[in-house]
Amino acid sequence: MSQMRKDIFTDRWAIVEDGDGLQPTDFDFKKFTRDKGFCPFCESNESSTPEEVFAIRNRASSPNGPGWSVRVVPNSRPRLRIEGGLARRAEVLHDLMNGVGAHEIIVETSRHDRSLHELEIGEISDVIRAYVARIVDLEGDKRVRYVLIFKNHGEGAGAHTISHSISQLIALPITPRAVKTKLMIARDYFALKERCIYCDVLQQELRGRKRLIAENEDFVAFAPFASRFPFEMCVLPKFHSSAFSRIEASQGKNLALILRNVLQKLDQKVGGPPYNLSLHDRPFLRPRGNYWKTIEEDFHWHIEVLPHISRITGFEWASGFFYNPLPPEVAARSLSPDFPSELAGSNTP
Amino acid sequence: MSQMRKDIFTDRWAIVEDGDGLQPTDFDFKKFTRDKGFCPFCESNESSTPEEVFAIRNRASSPNGPGWSVRVVPNSRPRLRIEGGLARRAEVLHDLMNGVGAHEIIVETSRHDRSLHELEIGEISDVIRAYVARIVDLEGDKRVRYVLIFKNHGEGAGAHTISHSISQLIALPITPRAVKTKLMIARDYFALKERCIYCDVLQQELRGRKRLIAENEDFVAFAPFASRFPFEMCVLPKFHSSAFSRIEASQGKNLALILRNVLQKLDQKVGGPPYNLSLHDRPFLRPRGNYWKTIEEDFHWHIEVLPHISRITGFEWASGFFYNPLPPEVAARSLSPDFPSELAGSNTP
Repeated sequence: MSQMRKDIFTDRWAIVEDGDGLQPTDFDFKKFTRDKGFCPFCESNESSTPEEVFAIRNRASSPNGPGWSVRVVPNSRPRLRIEGGLARRAEVLHDLMNGVGAHEIIVETSRHDRSLHELEIGEISDVIRAYVARIVDLEGDKRVRYVLIFKNHGEGAGAHTISHSISQLIALPITPRAVKTKLMIARDYFALKERCIYCDVLQQELRGRKRLIAENEDFVAFAPFASRFPFEMCVLPKFHSSAFSRIEASQGKNLALILRNVLQKLDQKVGGPPYNLSLHDRPFLRPRGNYWKTIEEDFHWHIEVLPHISRITGFEWASGFFYNPLPPEVAARSLSPDFPSELAGSNTP
Repeated sequence: MSQMRKDIFTDRWAIVEDGDGLQPTDFDFKKFTRDKGFCPFCESNESSTPEEVFAIRNRASSPNGPGWSVRVVPNSRPRLRIEGGLARRAEVLHDLMNGVGAHEIIVETSRHDRSLHELEIGEISDVIRAYVARIVDLEGDKRVRYVLIFKNHGEGAGAHTISHSISQLIALPITPRAVKTKLMIARDYFALKERCIYCDVLQQELRGRKRLIAENEDFVAFAPFASRFPFEMCVLPKFHSSAFSRIEASQGKNLALILRNVLQKLDQKVGGPPYNLSLHDRPFLRPRGNYWKTIEEDFHWHIEVLPHISRITGFEWASGFFYNPLPPEVAARSLSPDFPSELAGSNTP
């Protein structure tokens, strides 16, 4: 019999099947493929993009020329623009404002033929340094309240035709409701228990181990209890921290290690599904629009990986409920058969 | 410049482009196609489905035989099952319960070669009668708190390989958070203004007319101010009512008329995109889990139509924000060029 499971961080429910007889390779999806056309993100094509706002480069190289490992440029077709004021206003009952913000492309490598999970640890650490640098820079723009960094891998995850490995950054003048929901739930939990909800779940997952996928000194990756998708993953720092940008160099290296590990597992054990990766950071603290006085205690940044290997239907759209054919315990065990898992038997055939 | 627009019913934001130069036919999507294999939902194949729980049939016909116009059967691979207790319980911090509920297929026509928008008005009215009959029946099951009726049209909307025109019904033991959010916002609005938020938006749309798509005596269809997708539509009763199941026969006929009208427009003017349709009804009133004492005044049922013709990326997944390349004013005007629209100029090129 299926179970209904509640996600403790969002109050969202998922219907999770018993997964009877399903194998990790039983899913049908459009595998990632690499295009071979002209690519504006490749080394030596720097003049095809807007001018870079950040790069990690060789000392001998010059801005907007070759010789870099990570390069950040404004999106040439941005969803939001950096110029101008917000002009918050009403249209009778409705609220609107100008589309002011930032939309940047973080080119993760100068090489067209490498995905994120195929980079060296030093290269992935550089990508993480670029994330931090851009967040710190944008915090100085008082119009910006929230920075979202995300990655679309493969067409089924909404990626465009250029397959060069990139992340995207969108800086928003408001905190999205999905983020506020997490913050409010974390705050209510802390108010009740005087403990961080993410730290508590971390402890439960580390003790139970049946949903663990990978672990190192600073991070744990697990399949969330109420996973929406088969092989959904959450990467959580073991240290409590509300702000991603405060990550230290050694922690950045361990983040690179665990990210490469779990993305390699998706590629090798599930067969290269499309996925979205997103960084769930806290909003910037601003005098207005800041309900988050206790955010440093309440919130704990994390990364979500959502493989797109099951159908989204009218049911999901209308209810926010999800239907997941594969229990996270089975997903975790098939990704990490080496993890001892004495409890796994109770939820699996 | 793009605009950021807030959806008044959900507090969700959308980035809406200025749509400069876009035509309604400029979008790329996988058009609906009809399969020709064996179909369990066709007339004379009734023995291929579980036994019917409701049907509208000729007097001379017998249950589970031919001679029907609408037929409701349990899903043979249900996401939730009707048998058993919920057994609400915890796994340390996490909440879970058994997957108890109902999952039914509403076969909208006995003919394989007709989509919903190609049926006669009498036939669509029968589909609406079937929706009502099933909701009323399930209200008697005290475990059920919410009934969601939805439709997946085309593969891009999550429909399975059988193309026979069906709706689906899922009866849930909890009210989904997405529904609760709408109810809470409507309640807060009524508490402040002593007016229904949906009635207020209805009046604004009827006065402004620039987002109107269709209208008759009982219903209006419009493109929502903060539309998530190009050609997104909301069908709203002009009469205030919180419960879909109280619809009268003449209103049911007018609902059939407006639904066929807007779905025909999607097919003919946009080129047959995949879409999801969902009924947003109030939850059942139960002694427990009922925060909704004022629901009859606060809430106003409605139908949403979401065409799937733009990409969902990590941005949408992580933020709940949407990016819509086509302003709803342009969408409405291109679907209904006959509507006078003196205000449309202000938001369009």
